[in-house]
Parts: sequence; structure tokens; C-alpha cells
Amino acid sequence: MMIRIGLDMMGGDYAPLEAMKGVDAFFREGNSHAHLVLIGREPEIREHLSSFSFPETNYSIIHAPSVIEMHEHPTKALKEKQDSSIAIGFHLLETGKIEAFISAGNTGAMMVGSLFVIKTMEGILRPTIGTYLPREDGSLGVLLDAGMNADCKPENLNQFAVLGSLFAEHILGIQQPKVGLINIGEEEGKGNLLTQATYPLLKENNLIHFIGNVEGRDILLNKADVFVCEGFTGNVILKFAESIYDIVKRRNIHDEHFDRFNFETYGGVPVLGISKPVIIGHGISHATAFKNMIRTADRMIKTDLTGRIRNSFAEITQS
Amino acid sequence: MMIRIGLDMMGGDYAPLEAMKGVDAFFREGNSHAHLVLIGREPEIREHLSSFSFPETNYSIIHAPSVIEMHEHPTKALKEKQDSSIAIGFHLLETGKIEAFISAGNTGAMMVGSLFVIKTMEGILRPTIGTYLPREDGSLGVLLDAGMNADCKPENLNQFAVLGSLFAEHILGIQQPKVGLINIGEEEGKGNLLTQATYPLLKENNLIHFIGNVEGRDILLNKADVFVCEGFTGNVILKFAESIYDIVKRRNIHDEHFDRFNFETYGGVPVLGISKPVIIGHGISHATAFKNMIRTADRMIKTDLTGRIRNSFAEITQS
Repeated sequence: MMIRIGLDMMGGDYAPLEAMKGVDAFFREGNSHAHLVLIGREPEIREHLSSFSFPETNYSIIHAPSVIEMHEHPTKALKEKQDSSIAIGFHLLETGKIEAFISAGNTGAMMVGSLFVIKTMEGILRPTIGTYLPREDGSLGVLLDAGMNADCKPENLNQFAVLGSLFAEHILGIQQPKVGLINIGEEEGKGNLLTQATYPLLKENNLIHFIGNVEGRDILLNKADVFVCEGFTGNVILKFAESIYDIVKRRNIHDEHFDRFNFETYGGVPVLGISKPVIIGHGISHATAFKNMIRTADRMIKTDLTGRIRNSFAEITQS
Repeated sequence: MMIRIGLDMMGGDYAPLEAMKGVDAFFREGNSHAHLVLIGREPEIREHLSSFSFPETNYSIIHAPSVIEMHEHPTKALKEKQDSSIAIGFHLLETGKIEAFISAGNTGAMMVGSLFVIKTMEGILRPTIGTYLPREDGSLGVLLDAGMNADCKPENLNQFAVLGSLFAEHILGIQQPKVGLINIGEEEGKGNLLTQATYPLLKENNLIHFIGNVEGRDILLNKADVFVCEGFTGNVILKFAESIYDIVKRRNIHDEHFDRFNFETYGGVPVLGISKPVIIGHGISHATAFKNMIRTADRMIKTDLTGRIRNSFAEITQS
């Protein structure tokens, strides 16, 4: 049985061409075990399909006549446009016709679908979305939350630490990932009210390998693999880091490491803590981003990340 | 009457030599209107003094036999070491013998002295410390709070905006400085509970030129001159930015703009909101940092920044 991954072909500024290129790149890497379900306007998809040559057994098309545009109100659009690529994608995922759903379309609609169609897993207080962190050795770390939860409680951060650890282990391939709490000051007891209250929870959490507080200067280092913070700080850091890439380009600096600050190439990090794999991409995703998102979805399914998360939180609930 | 600036000669990892070099550099720029009060162990100061040749009328030495070391407990040390350079510096400032006090020594002791010897100005809820932000056109912006106040209320941020504006106008020389609220999302209503509640206060504040929300990607741009946030986010950003400089150096990238990410060269930003000018420097301050702190103190005195802050907050209290 092939792994079935659903991809919104209408999502993102360069859809469907860049999405198609991403699918092509994915198959060129030899992933014949996967079957891509291409969701979108069939005539447009077929038109672009003619330029590519991946095997017919590896894909199918699900026609979705409408599209939720970037500016539309998420809840309203998702409700009213039942025939849109995003609504159909969520429906396919909900009913088990696909095992993961990817879209670079309307972020709000993707969030709403994740939370209200796919739903939060039992035992999870708040799902989270992280961001990759490029390190100088070529590896990636993960920071979460990257903006989904602007205000958090200590329990939320404690759960993000577990979600991030499982992601780092199974998707990034890091054994016993080190978890750092983003803080101002290294010693226990330092920080704001939130981090002061979070520290003891992380310290006593047996599901993670907690290494203590980390500071802003450590975020781009290998000091930790999983960096935990609330979504306000996380989002400011992410966008600040993105702006470093812009400056580097503007100043005509060519450097392999800083090239990896181009966050658009990574594609999205999955929504962690919901019942099934969903990946939300950047609006300006290009082929590489789409390819990377398909790979991440593929890996999530193969490693059964969602099942592992479910088991971890079942343990906590029992204990 | 000469401007009298007190400088702790024992503060910082490279004291007193780098402090002395900073004094020398300051006078080499022709600042004969200033009189530097050099506070510290007189024999050590005299020993280094022999290598320099600034006019005798431009400095005097106040002997302070002891030093508050970097690792000492701030409150305890300041109380017990009355004969330390920091304690004497605060005493001189309090009694009007100097008009500003600068130290790169024990940061905690400098904070305690600022708050409990010099004291918070009437009408100010919480004093703040900012950080400079290098921009590509060579100018500097200011971000505050940079870590002094980890948890803040909307009223605190509203006051930081006024303090930052006055600093930007009189010290950085920016006419009608633009104030941006660091947030996640540009539209009013976006953000966490704190920024959502702060936005309307800034909007109605006639003492500032509020331009709305700014995001992480805008912090290094000229979109605003004064960037306002609580001290947790501010500190994480500052240290993250510092780490960019480390990476740039490590990767042997030579770039004029990124060279300005070496925050050590700026020296400290004054503690804003206390009754008299105090500047706290980075522990690893070198000559340029000391020179810049002396210049900032000089400019604070000349422009009567403290008096201007007092007047602004008197207006608010009356209205």
C-alpha cells in the first residue's frame, strides 16, 4: 500500500507550477513508495502536468473548483467554500483518503481546518507550529512556538518541549535531542514569570532531555536542538532571522551558512499536536519548499510521528 | 563651569587601561569643556595616567580603595563596600559633585545604585535600559526595554515609548522619532494580550509619533527609530543580534554593516527614567565603548535629557 499524501496545488503565490515542480523533484529523488493526491482545478493541473513525466501510478487528481484566496477570512471561507482545495484536502484527510495534507495557501484557513476539522489530540492543551533553525554544521534545530500561540502558560511550553523533541528525533533524526528553554539569563530562577514557572516543569519532565535555560545568543548554535518559548518571542526571532537573510542578499554577501537563512526553502513545519499530519507552507513557497514539505509529510507518515505523540501524551495522562 | 562626568576606572574586564584609553580618545576629539572625575584605586590610575597626556584641568582622581567584583551580590556589595568605586560614584552623583556616572562594572550593583541611590523619577513606573540598533544607512535606532523589565504592563511600554523618543531625539539627533510597537502582525488588534492592550495607549499618546506595529523583520530597518517591547523579547533579540556578529566573524565575512553588530563598541545606553544620568557599560568594554559612553553622558548633560524627561512626565501627571 502506497503512502498517500494530499497536496493543495492552488496554495501559494506560485501555484500550481511551483507545486508541480516540487512534486517532480520529490519523485526524481526516487520516492516510488508515495502516491501524491493533487488537489485543485483539474484543467490547470493537467495543463502543467504535460511538462512533467512522473509515473501515473504515483499520482491522482482530485478536482476542486474553487480556491480560498490569501485575503479571505479563514473561518468564513472554509465554511462557505466547501469545494475549495483546502476544504477538500481536509475532508480527504479526515476521512482517511490521504494520510497527510500540505498547503501553502491561506494560513488562517489551514489553522482553522487543523484545529476544527482534524482537531487537537487528546491530552494536548494547544497545538503548536515551530520553525527550523539553521546551524553552522549544516544541521537543523527547531524552535517552537513560532507564532501560533502568542500567550502561553507554563504547561503549554512543557508540552511544546515534548512535541519538539519527538519532531527533532523522528523528523530531524537527532537522537535524544537537547531541549533548551529560551530565557534571559542562564541560571535557574532567572527570567520572566512564565519562564520561571516553566523551568521546574521541564526539569521534571522525563520525556525530554532538558539542558536548562538558553539565551538569544545560543539560538543559532548547537547548544540545544529544541528551543522552547511562547509564540510572541518565537515569531519575533523568526522574522528577525529572516531579515538577516535579506540584509545578506542586499549587501551581496555570499556565504553558504547565511544562504540557509532563506527560510522559504524549508517549507513548513507540521502543526504538532493535532490528530493527523498537516503541513502549512509559506505563501511564497517555491519548488524546493514544496519538495521539502512532501518529504516531511512522507517522513511523518513513515515514522508515525502522530502515533508517537499520541502515545507520549497517553503516558502523561496515565501518570 | 565645566561639565563633570564621573567614570568608574575599575569597572569592566579591561579596567583601568581601556577606560583610560577611552578618556584619552574622548579628549583627542577636543572636548575641553568636560572634566572627567576618575574614580578608583589612585595608584593604579596614576600608573596608567603616565602614558597619556590630557590636560590636568580636564580631570581629577577620586581614590576608591575597593572594587565590587563581577560575581558579587549587588545589593550586599553596594551596602558593604561603601569605599568601592561604584558606591563612591553614586555618592558623588547623588550629592551633585558629578553630573553623570559611568561604569562597566557589576551590572547588578549599577542597577541597585540607579534605583535606590539615584531613584526613579516621579511619575515613572519603571526605569528602562535600551540598546542601540545598527541600520544600513549608518544611523542608529533604539530598542527598549533590553532586559531590565522582564514582565511589563501596557503602561510600562507606553512610558518606554516616551523615554525612547526623548533619547532618540536628543541623543541620537532624530527629529520626531518614529515609534513602533514590536508585535507579531501589523494590523491593530494583532499580538499577545500585552501588545493588544498597549497599542491604543501608544495611539493616543501625544508625546510620541506612533507609527503602529512593527515585526521582527523591521527591527533592523528604518521603519521606526524607537522600537518598544518588554524586556524579555528585547533581551532575546539583542543577544540574538550579538550572535550574528559572532557568526559573521567566525565565517570571515568582512562587511561594514555587520561590523556594527559588535554591540561592545557602542558602550551602554543610559538608564532612562531615573533622576540623574547613569550609564552602565558592557563588562567587556574596550576604549571605543568607554569613549562612546563618555560622549553619551556629555550629550545627556548638554541637552538636559533628564530635565526634559522630567518635564514630559510632569505634563502627563497634570493632564
